[in-house]
Formats: sequence, C-alpha cells, structure tokens
Amino acid sequence: MNSIITLTTDFGRKDAYVGAMKGVILGINPSARIVDLSHEIEPLNIRQGSLVLASAYPFFPKGTVHVAVVDPGVGSGRKLLCVKIGSAYFMAPDNGLLTPVFEAEKSCSIREISNREFFRKNISATFHGRDILASAAGWLSKKDIFSRLGPVVSCCKRLAWPAVKRLKDGIRGEILAVDHFGNLITNIKASDLPGAIDRFRVKAGKRLISVWGKCYADGKPGRPMALISSMDYLEIAVPNGSAAALTGLKPGQEVTVTK
Amino acid sequence: MNSIITLTTDFGRKDAYVGAMKGVILGINPSARIVDLSHEIEPLNIRQGSLVLASAYPFFPKGTVHVAVVDPGVGSGRKLLCVKIGSAYFMAPDNGLLTPVFEAEKSCSIREISNREFFRKNISATFHGRDILASAAGWLSKKDIFSRLGPVVSCCKRLAWPAVKRLKDGIRGEILAVDHFGNLITNIKASDLPGAIDRFRVKAGKRLISVWGKCYADGKPGRPMALISSMDYLEIAVPNGSAAALTGLKPGQEVTVTK
Amino acid sequence: MNSIITLTTDFGRKDAYVGAMKGVILGINPSARIVDLSHEIEPLNIRQGSLVLASAYPFFPKGTVHVAVVDPGVGSGRKLLCVKIGSAYFMAPDNGLLTPVFEAEKSCSIREISNREFFRKNISATFHGRDILASAAGWLSKKDIFSRLGPVVSCCKRLAWPAVKRLKDGIRGEILAVDHFGNLITNIKASDLPGAIDRFRVKAGKRLISVWGKCYADGKPGRPMALISSMDYLEIAVPNGSAAALTGLKPGQEVTVTK
Repeated sequence: MNSIITLTTDFGRKDAYVGAMKGVILGINPSARIVDLSHEIEPLNIRQGSLVLASAYPFFPKGTVHVAVVDPGVGSGRKLLCVKIGSAYFMAPDNGLLTPVFEAEKSCSIREISNREFFRKNISATFHGRDILASAAGWLSKKDIFSRLGPVVSCCKRLAWPAVKRLKDGIRGEILAVDHFGNLITNIKASDLPGAIDRFRVKAGKRLISVWGKCYADGKPGRPMALISSMDYLEIAVPNGSAAALTGLKPGQEVTVTK
Repeated sequence: MNSIITLTTDFGRKDAYVGAMKGVILGINPSARIVDLSHEIEPLNIRQGSLVLASAYPFFPKGTVHVAVVDPGVGSGRKLLCVKIGSAYFMAPDNGLLTPVFEAEKSCSIREISNREFFRKNISATFHGRDILASAAGWLSKKDIFSRLGPVVSCCKRLAWPAVKRLKDGIRGEILAVDHFGNLITNIKASDLPGAIDRFRVKAGKRLISVWGKCYADGKPGRPMALISSMDYLEIAVPNGSAAALTGLKPGQEVTVTK
Repeated sequence: MNSIITLTTDFGRKDAYVGAMKGVILGINPSARIVDLSHEIEPLNIRQGSLVLASAYPFFPKGTVHVAVVDPGVGSGRKLLCVKIGSAYFMAPDNGLLTPVFEAEKSCSIREISNREFFRKNISATFHGRDILASAAGWLSKKDIFSRLGPVVSCCKRLAWPAVKRLKDGIRGEILAVDHFGNLITNIKASDLPGAIDRFRVKAGKRLISVWGKCYADGKPGRPMALISSMDYLEIAVPNGSAAALTGLKPGQEVTVTK
C-alpha cells in the first residue's frame, strides 16, 4: 500500500458527490493521497470510463488503489469488485468498467466487496461509491485487507471491445474516442503496424489521411494527419485544430491502414 | 485540527483564483491537505453553494476546516465568519452560505474573522477568499486559534429556506436543485414520509410520478421515478436519462406527496 | 524544495492526460503534493496559460515547482526549460509560456531540460508533459538537481506582450483576459494611475465606464464599473453580471484612462 487512491467517475464537479467520497476516505485513512483521474466521464458511459482508467493507471506507483464509479446499476444485484494485479488494486462495479484492465493484465485476483466491516454504517441504495467503495478503498489504502473484502470471484462482466481485424495488406480498426483537443484515438496499436509507418495509407470513414508525422508540428495547421498517440495507438489529429470538428468523424467509424 | 481544508467556491477552474488560495494555504501550513468540494457553484448562487457544502461536510473527519466563498459582497461591510460545530470549522462570508449548517447543528460558536494577525499583509478589496479566508484557514488548520480570530458573533444572516408544509394526507415541498445527472432533488426528507414509502403518490409540477424505486435500476429507462436520494431526500430521476431534461421541471416548482 | 508541484495545462479534465502526469510524479516522489492551477487553458493558448501561471505563482511558498504545459510544438525542436527564480522553479516548453515570469523577476537562471537521466524511459513524441516534465519535476521536488538538468540557456522565446502606452493625460492599454465571472482584466496596473483613482475617466472600446468602486458592491447591478483587480490591474466588471456579456468587449480591445 502506498496510500494513493485515484478516482474516476461520471459525477461531474458541480455537486457534492466527489467531495463526499473524499471525506469518507480521509475519515478512514487521514494519510490517503487522493488523485482525481477524471470526474467528467459522460454520465453512464462505462466504455469511456474504462478508457480513461486504462490510459492512466499504468503510470501510478505500485500499491495504488484505483476506484472507478460509473454505475447505472447501483443498488441492484450487480456486484462490486476489487481486482488485484501485480502493481495495483482496482475497485469498481462489475459492469465492464475494468475490461481493459483484464485485457492488459496477464493475471489478477478478484474479490467481491461484500464484507460490511469495510462499509459505512448506513448504505444508501443510490451511492455505493461513497458508502462502500470509498470506505473500502480507505481501508485498503491503509493495509492489505484484500482477501478479507469478500469471496473470490471467477467470472466478471466484460464489455464487447471492438477488435482490430487483420487484412491481407494491413489492418482495420475503428475510432474509439475523441479527446479534449478533438484528436481521434483509434484501437489500432503502433505494434500492429510493423516497419516504416509512413508507408501505410490511412483511411478514416471516407477520408484519406495523407500526412504522417511523429508529432503535431510535423503536420500542417488545419490538415488532418496520422501519428502514434502517447498511449501507442494510431491517432488522427489536426495541428492547431480539432480533427473531430474538421472531419466530422466519430467514435465507432471505421479506420483502415493499408500498404 | 486534522490539517484538512475543503474549498467550495463559484470561481470556476479556468482562472488562477483557486490556485492562489491554495498557494496561500500551503505557504502558511505546508502540511495542509486541501480538498476541492466544488468550484462550479453558479456565480453568486449562495443557495447552491450552501447545498453543496451541506451535502459534503458531514462525511469529513473531526477537525476539518471548510472554507466557502460565494461572495458578492466582498470588500463591503459584510462580515467574515468562522463557525465551530462539534466536529468541524466553517469559514465563509456572512451572507447565508452557512444556513444549512445552522439548521443542522444544534449548537455552534461563531466568531467574526477580523484579527489582522491571521490575514495576508495586503488585502485586496475584491478577493478576501485569498487574502483573509485562505490565510486564516491555513492558520486554523495548524492550531486552534478559533477564539483569537475575532469577537463572538450572535446574529448571522440566514437564507429564507423553503420549508415543507404538512398537508392532512401528506406533505408539500419543492424542487431544491438539479444535479449533474439531471436528478431533481427536493426538500422533502425521507423521515417526512413515514411507513411504506411506495404507498405515497408523488406529483411534481403538473406531473404525476407513478413509479417508486429503491435505486435507479428499479425504474424503467426514460420513465420518471421517485426514490430517496443518497442524502435522504425525495428525488425524482429518470433511469439512463435526465429527469430535468425529460420533465422540464425546475428548482422552485412544487412537489406534493400524498397517500 | 518543499515537495509542492503545481500544474497548469490545456489538457482539460475529461481525459487521462492530467492523471498520467500525476502518476509519474508520485512514482518518483511519493511525498509530492500536487496542486492543479488550471487545466482549462484554451487549447494551445499560450498567452492565457502564461497569465494564469503569473497570477498564481507569487502566492506559493519558496521552493515550489511550477509545471506548465501548453505545447503545440511538442516533439519538434523547441526546447524544454527549467527556470529558477529566488523562490521557485518553473518547467515549461520554450514557447513564451514563461514570459510574465521573465518580466516580473529581476534575475533568473535557466537550464534546458535535456538530461535523460531525469526522463521516463520511453518518450512519446506527443506527450513530453508526462514523459519529461512530470518526471523531471518529480525529481526536482525531491532534491536540487537544477544544475544537472541540462546546459545553461541564455536566450528564451518571449511572447509579444501588449505594453501600455503613456498619454499626456493618462494611459492607454488593452483588455488582456476575461475571467470566469465575465470580468474584463486589462494590462493597466494600479501603479500606472497615481493619486485619487476616481478622478480618472475610463473608456473601453467605445464605451465610457462612469463608475469607480473599490469592490463590486460599490457599483450598481447591471452597470459596468471600474475597479482594481485582486492582482492590482484595472478591471471592468458588472456587479451581479458579466461585463463581457453585457458590453461585448473582448481581449485585445483598447482601454484608455485619462484625467
């Protein structure tokens, strides 16, 4: 345990929800260091939440507890999970939010969070993030109570994740997300594109992307370009502009990369 | 003192105002742990600020200092207050921002913050949040200077708070706030509705809410439902949607709950 | 070193970028205390970033490390800088982001950040904020490695900063920024306006501002007024309203103050 707890939610920042979670954590572990990953996940958008978490957790030190709450099923039968991987812990509802963690990590141990010893005394049916997850995370950030959280879980919900498809002369994927700058992030990995990357021809939707670069400054302002993102995925960007706004391309649209 | 200081303001996040307050606090108490409750209070909306504070402070540990700045009267004659309740301190302008704290807490001690010993040296007439409140909070988070902050205050400004009205077969209240998800939060407490809650009939504005649930998953996507919020108030929600957008209901509109 | 690191970026809060930087910092210095100044700088707006940084850093204690990332040239030839002033360190791309720091501080030492010992192992060409700046800031917040960061730099890029012009009976400046409340912040300093300030006549664009006040409460709701901002600059505000919305005035427009 390193006493670091990260939070990823769809709660926004105008209400008291995030603050209440932090109060609960600090009441249990006054030394906890709480880091906001994002609270601007689109309401109930589990996939977006899972992507943000997946893009940030690898950079945190060993022993960090990552709490994620995008939880349309709060109060219903869905389980709450604690997942332990080599270097970190995750706490989240069993609704697919941890899909990319399961994909990326070879081995993990999973427990249901059901031991009321680690809950707040009164449990609201609509805010398990505060009354169960924040509380249990506070305890876990103090000492290794992983195996006491609840029974072992063998089967978790996973999101249907868009897979890339290998073509005879390249690969086909799709746009996964649009970032704050309007960059279009795809699900095609740099390692899917062997050799000199700029031999490849990129088509996104009906649009041919004719410029490759290593960085934004390699492109021309206002012209779409292809590059490898800071998470090692194919990205379509517009220097000094928004690729999403300029091209009209959206998550879900097809991207092909061929020789 | 536990060295935790929370901040609630209408400053937004794009300017340097919040950062400057944090710098002042850390300059005085380098061990302070600063927690943002919200900086997205609507500009000058004292009632919204008071609601966010009221919904978060009960979850913080004993000794926390809560600083709230929604302060249209900054620089004028309005006082700055420090309020001590059993478990916490509050610092805010005397403009009603602490109304729900006064309502909820049986006993409290109140001081004016007027001792310049705890101010910054130069006081801007437009930013007491930085030059007085952050400074005094920094000192208070280090040691108990409460009684040295200034003279005892016996009378504070309170907002006219919408009260519920008991009817012969139920209760009448109103919509107090709309949260990030579009949930409509009322001023009717769960404890105002004795017995089996789903015997009650909820009418909000001209709209009959026919479904009760314990949690969002008990309702139907796209259909308004009634439930008890995580702060124990009657809430009107739309599973997988925004009750505010779907119903057009707004803060101030009447809600009746009858048998 | 006081282990405080501030962050100012144009990354927004919905993606994982800010979180990843924090993870890198905490992996290197688990005791770092990270303070967000703003992540809502308009994408690629270097001047706005420099203004936020300039308005917050003077309030932080000696030894703070300020990291600023508004970096359209990431991955290209532009240098990364570490600037040491009496009381603080700054890390930023060499693109003008530190212009107001250079203007305000009499003496400073500047190093290029080029020693890979303080970088992450793999460097993305599009995210030096994470792979170089966050990493180097983590190290610098632990101990004084300033002189080991890289070679001395003698010449840095500065933004063309709009200067005030003295007139025979006053001064001419311009609107520099609009804050969250819609207040119009100019580049005219209080010290540019000697003596009784309300003898001066303020004209902004084509609009005569006829009311002076010390604080917002001195004005009339809905009526533009002039006052001295909390950073000691001439500001045009509308009590209980937005001066930007009401007057239509924008950054870049001329403001004259004459007797």
